[in-house]
Amino acid sequence: MKRVSAIIVAAGEGRRFGGAKQDALLAGQTVLERVLDRFNTHPEIADIILVLKDINHTQDYREKFLKISAVTSGGIERQDSVLAGFQALPPDKVDIVLIHDGVRPLVSNTLISRVIKATADKGAVVPVISLEDTIKQVHGDKILSTANRTQLRRVQTPQGFKYHLLQAALEKAQAERYYGTDEASLVERLKKEVGTVPGDRRNIKITTPEDIKYAEALLED
Amino acid sequence: MKRVSAIIVAAGEGRRFGGAKQDALLAGQTVLERVLDRFNTHPEIADIILVLKDINHTQDYREKFLKISAVTSGGIERQDSVLAGFQALPPDKVDIVLIHDGVRPLVSNTLISRVIKATADKGAVVPVISLEDTIKQVHGDKILSTANRTQLRRVQTPQGFKYHLLQAALEKAQAERYYGTDEASLVERLKKEVGTVPGDRRNIKITTPEDIKYAEALLED
Repeated sequence: MKRVSAIIVAAGEGRRFGGAKQDALLAGQTVLERVLDRFNTHPEIADIILVLKDINHTQDYREKFLKISAVTSGGIERQDSVLAGFQALPPDKVDIVLIHDGVRPLVSNTLISRVIKATADKGAVVPVISLEDTIKQVHGDKILSTANRTQLRRVQTPQGFKYHLLQAALEKAQAERYYGTDEASLVERLKKEVGTVPGDRRNIKITTPEDIKYAEALLED
Repeated sequence: MKRVSAIIVAAGEGRRFGGAKQDALLAGQTVLERVLDRFNTHPEIADIILVLKDINHTQDYREKFLKISAVTSGGIERQDSVLAGFQALPPDKVDIVLIHDGVRPLVSNTLISRVIKATADKGAVVPVISLEDTIKQVHGDKILSTANRTQLRRVQTPQGFKYHLLQAALEKAQAERYYGTDEASLVERLKKEVGTVPGDRRNIKITTPEDIKYAEALLED
């Protein structure tokens, strides 16, 4: 059986939120606790690396979520945080790494399983959903064209990677001082194929206080 | 002074909503009533054309919102509804036409004014907002590339057009049986320039029952 580790990236500042988004209460539990709970209870997850801005006072998390094997402090950019999380993994023991946003608390067990299964098969996988809005390509304040949205997808997390592929992708990006908006883009730069699996519209990213209300409404369903 | 008419397109079925989305209650008022109120009270709007699926029992709307000059029944596709609304405009009297989704109840006076002003200047204008998610171009279940999201925008309404430009765009589309995902795309097909103005993140589209909760949270701010 493949050993699967999850890196939970929760080192953001939450500028638009007015406080750390992952610490906001969502139906009585913090956003980050909900994320940790989802991965902690998932039968295929062996361990969790938690990447935080401030790694003091994390005893609570470790006691509640026993699969947390390391808590490490993140960097300025998301990618720095992912790298820090990766370096905290037990070397040569992990087959598959999932990287998940600490502010996507509604990730389902089904989605986690789906990403793991596809990653074992394809090496690198992202969950995607379709775009509902019309999307335009612009130059300054002029429209160049209407994008063919049937070919575009919004990317979610968890993104899944075979350990050595993610290692190579992170090393290349670091050597070239390249920063991507997600980890899959680093694998794409290796010219390795990245697959997609269906994401989940409920798997939203908490960015504003209103997103909390929205997430609570989704939980009530 | 330019005469500005608004076409409110509210002929959708609301399949994902389980009932017509525009009739859902949002903080005590229906979504559509909120939309009509915003346009009815805007000082630059001369009249409103309301496009509905079912045009029976619309006396209430006409009594409450005195700028409604016509209620007309929409077609199967959004573009059919826009065309029906356009044909209900008083000919040769309107300078600028705004087209607005009947399910975007949080449109602000400021945004309406901004679109009108830019349309008078540029002929065709859409409000846009940036994309927060990573966007990938896909082929089947494989990723082709990560899109440069700095060049992409999500399109909102109201979209604004000079009357004769919209007329030409709708006629060409109709003659060629072309359906676009928005009206601006029909103008783009005329090789006429479409401008952008900053949209508003609060100007959300109500698509699911959870969007109502989200909109109510936005209203509380």
